[in-house]
Amino acid sequence: MWKNKKYKDIKNKVDERILKITANKNEIIQEAVTDLVNAGGKRLRPILVILASRFGEIEDEKVYNIAAGIEIIHMSTLIHDDIIDEADLRRGEKTTHKRFGKKMAVFIGDYLISRTLDIFEDNLSKKSRKKLNKVVSLICEGEIKQFQNKNNIEISTLDYFRRIRKKTALLFGLSMYIGAYESGIRGKKFNHLYNFAIEMGMAFQIEDDLLDFQGKEDITGKNVGKDLESGIYTLPVVLLLNNKKTKEKTKEILRNENKVIARKKIIELINKYDMIGESRSIAEKFVKKAKNNLKELPDNKTRKFILKIMERQIDRRY
Amino acid sequence: MWKNKKYKDIKNKVDERILKITANKNEIIQEAVTDLVNAGGKRLRPILVILASRFGEIEDEKVYNIAAGIEIIHMSTLIHDDIIDEADLRRGEKTTHKRFGKKMAVFIGDYLISRTLDIFEDNLSKKSRKKLNKVVSLICEGEIKQFQNKNNIEISTLDYFRRIRKKTALLFGLSMYIGAYESGIRGKKFNHLYNFAIEMGMAFQIEDDLLDFQGKEDITGKNVGKDLESGIYTLPVVLLLNNKKTKEKTKEILRNENKVIARKKIIELINKYDMIGESRSIAEKFVKKAKNNLKELPDNKTRKFILKIMERQIDRRY
Repeated sequence: MWKNKKYKDIKNKVDERILKITANKNEIIQEAVTDLVNAGGKRLRPILVILASRFGEIEDEKVYNIAAGIEIIHMSTLIHDDIIDEADLRRGEKTTHKRFGKKMAVFIGDYLISRTLDIFEDNLSKKSRKKLNKVVSLICEGEIKQFQNKNNIEISTLDYFRRIRKKTALLFGLSMYIGAYESGIRGKKFNHLYNFAIEMGMAFQIEDDLLDFQGKEDITGKNVGKDLESGIYTLPVVLLLNNKKTKEKTKEILRNENKVIARKKIIELINKYDMIGESRSIAEKFVKKAKNNLKELPDNKTRKFILKIMERQIDRRY
Repeated sequence: MWKNKKYKDIKNKVDERILKITANKNEIIQEAVTDLVNAGGKRLRPILVILASRFGEIEDEKVYNIAAGIEIIHMSTLIHDDIIDEADLRRGEKTTHKRFGKKMAVFIGDYLISRTLDIFEDNLSKKSRKKLNKVVSLICEGEIKQFQNKNNIEISTLDYFRRIRKKTALLFGLSMYIGAYESGIRGKKFNHLYNFAIEMGMAFQIEDDLLDFQGKEDITGKNVGKDLESGIYTLPVVLLLNNKKTKEKTKEILRNENKVIARKKIIELINKYDMIGESRSIAEKFVKKAKNNLKELPDNKTRKFILKIMERQIDRRY
């Protein structure tokens, strides 16, 4: 995907804008931001902002400011996440708090947020800013809920869907929401773009969660089986917990075994009952709903490009 | 001060509004916020918002929303601070992260900020919101700078003043800024209110820093000598480092001794050269400048009340 010239051009323009917005004469801030930008990442959320805007009209200057702002918010949540999880690496690079210390990392995160709010003040309508506040509140609620649901063997698939909606899909949705709204898009076209991004976000997070069982440490920079061991049950486990055949056995394991053994036994069950396959077919349903929304949009280059990005992203072949 | 009925009435109304703004059906969020409100605190920043507004005109509903918002922002910075400092107690009560864990505490802090932004969206003018963003950026820069200046024996008094300006005075200033601006106050009256709050904030932080040397653990809930030991040099130490008579000796101690011995020896020097007294007289100069600004305001009940609050707060006799 990165070799796609169109994608790369947008990504570079977003990165430039991020550096411009967050520029500061303080050398630590400057270094931290440069590191974050250079560490890479797909810039998926800003791409969604920009592609949504192409179904309407907006100045380039404005839409790149908005897109960069969304990515900076995303970056600062990653900084805060890494502090809490005490993660040393992200995408193979040292995390901000590992380089500069926890205290610095929190304030670098907060600095980034305040800079973004200022950019949004000048580039977003009140309606979009209200939507942003709402989404951030819901994301926080989602994280708190995820914590409350830790080690909860009574978790339902609906609980799981609600969690990933808040964790990921809402920010995908928000990206297309503000890209579209600020470009004057309204009505059905607006709804299809928003719903497309929500459904895509759901599929994206399911696939992301599946990586926890696939040991592709080199690609994601995350440890394997970490979610399960830390009591966060993602879709394959949730399916085991809600399937007549596997329910009781799974609960028994999670209730009685120590974490290391439980992890091993659960992975065996997941493989035996092909819960990865089942999870993937659920992700596919979200992809299908996303595509159905896309189909309702004008058939142009942008629509084709969005489809291509979604297919590549969900497959994770990047 | 708390027994003053007028003060108590405002404080109660602010607390009610804080609970209303942050209300959430999630029980952890609800409990965390109730704890924070019940843990007490002076509500100094919201009081400044409200008293500044009384020199102009504004609906009660609106000004209490703004005042509560400022206090919620302050609360969430305290939550984040306590996480980083790994502090177990604040005002004698368990800190949020001690009760709910670090992860929860970060998201409770972020939730509070997003709720406040939403309140500010509806109750503040663009100008005030831009000022808020600017102040938050500067506060973050200040914290980063404080970190860079840790154990810096070349720190000047000007460095120290710049630090406490960002750390405390700017948020005091912002409180009166938005209280006044949103009440239609402009020109000289506006400047005097803003400058009053800045100068008061400077004096307040100097006195707050002095508590580190006074061992009133029961009042502040903080440990004693903690700043010095952790390499944060507050005014008495900065004065030692910038006084011809004490400079070399102080530098030698901070350079060569281990932290425990350095702490003991520095406290001896502070007492010998009465650097607490000298710091206090510097704080008094800021109080004087604050009073000079106050004098330029209409001589009414509010002005008298502000004066009374400042005198009580700086003396810390509460």
